[in-house]
Amino acid sequence: MTTKHLSSGSSCPPLEDGVMRVYSMKYCPYAQRTHLVLAAKNIKHEVVYVNLKNKPEWLFEKNSLGKVPVLQINEHCLFESLITCDYLDEVYPEPPLYPAQPLKKAQDRMFIELWSQISAALLKLYFSKKDEQIMKKSCDDIKSGLDVFETELTKRGTKFFGGDTPGMLDYMIWPWAERLPMVEMIARNNGVLTQDRFPKMQNLEPVGHLHHDGRSRDAHCLTMKCWVLVLLVAVACISGMEKRAAASSN
Amino acid sequence: MTTKHLSSGSSCPPLEDGVMRVYSMKYCPYAQRTHLVLAAKNIKHEVVYVNLKNKPEWLFEKNSLGKVPVLQINEHCLFESLITCDYLDEVYPEPPLYPAQPLKKAQDRMFIELWSQISAALLKLYFSKKDEQIMKKSCDDIKSGLDVFETELTKRGTKFFGGDTPGMLDYMIWPWAERLPMVEMIARNNGVLTQDRFPKMQNLEPVGHLHHDGRSRDAHCLTMKCWVLVLLVAVACISGMEKRAAASSN
Repeated sequence: MTTKHLSSGSSCPPLEDGVMRVYSMKYCPYAQRTHLVLAAKNIKHEVVYVNLKNKPEWLFEKNSLGKVPVLQINEHCLFESLITCDYLDEVYPEPPLYPAQPLKKAQDRMFIELWSQISAALLKLYFSKKDEQIMKKSCDDIKSGLDVFETELTKRGTKFFGGDTPGMLDYMIWPWAERLPMVEMIARNNGVLTQDRFPKMQNLEPVGHLHHDGRSRDAHCLTMKCWVLVLLVAVACISGMEKRAAASSN
Repeated sequence: MTTKHLSSGSSCPPLEDGVMRVYSMKYCPYAQRTHLVLAAKNIKHEVVYVNLKNKPEWLFEKNSLGKVPVLQINEHCLFESLITCDYLDEVYPEPPLYPAQPLKKAQDRMFIELWSQISAALLKLYFSKKDEQIMKKSCDDIKSGLDVFETELTKRGTKFFGGDTPGMLDYMIWPWAERLPMVEMIARNNGVLTQDRFPKMQNLEPVGHLHHDGRSRDAHCLTMKCWVLVLLVAVACISGMEKRAAASSN
């Protein structure tokens, strides 16, 4: 399969019978969840990358919401990252990623749900366009969210939330946990995520395959930092242009 | 247990060992999901109602988000309606509420996820304060969402999404499905939900226990309609007062 991200006007590559396929985008944290679980269970699959800024028309036939990841098995398409991962865990039970006890499994699912508040706050922070109020609110939400996870991991006293090895909770939070170093950068080093407050969450053990294209955490962070820089510069330029336009029209 | 909704300043009633308890609010559709599954599986439990407008302080010890439902088993508290229901389905497997096949189970979970777009649009419609633009957008979202479910139920050709008897998907959508008659009322009978477009979704077979306080669907709808009327009148009054205030200040 090509690593090119297919766009509007493209054709969907034909799928061979019995081959599992993931529709993905290289930097999508949700798609990364599915990749992490596929890797953890060593499941054979192929990947078709999709341009999310200029989506191919056929993506909406796979997922009416037009999002990735989509997991295709013959003519059946599954979407929503957690649902694809839970499906893989049921069909490929080794290694099991949830605790065997239903109560403990439900608790891990609650933590996955709680993580969505942190991921939402991270997204807001990335797109805060340097708005001080949005940045402060996002940072506060990230901090209060991380407090819960820091406390829980300390309580569990294990390397991973899953114990000695990563579990579903570890895989579901990792795509955002590995991006935490960027918070400090966007918030301009104002001590948002100090090591003493979140020593565990900021130094989580990487969960096996770091990023689904096989790059190291550092390489990934570097790319992400570059993107953030580009974004910040672009926003500053646009903001400057707007100010100049407003000044000249007065 | 009392049916009084406990507020700030109240004490949480002591819990006996081994008793399952649900923290709920009588008209909360999310809590209703848990009640429906408890009833479907005939699980013994007690209910503590909570005033969500003036929350008791101890609610946040049960659920840091301060929401209902919360399912308490000894010292363990589970929240998020779907997670509580999935837990009950695992621990009390009869009758099973998901299809046995993992792929079909994942598909039903996808539909539950898709329903959250309809429930979000319904919420926006209820609180649209007669804003024409918000009302139109909400109604459009409800219609396009319902189209997917109408098509799916037609494709399945069964009485319920679960087959001859209700499954998890039926129970998870029912609290909003039973409120659909109100859409037409709020949207002032402008033909949003015509019977010919959604004959199945507007005439869903009630899923066993209709409402967790045991009232009939009609009684429940009547109460809800009264609430909507009160809301509309209140909004009209406030809007009128604002206009008069604006006029007098000019």
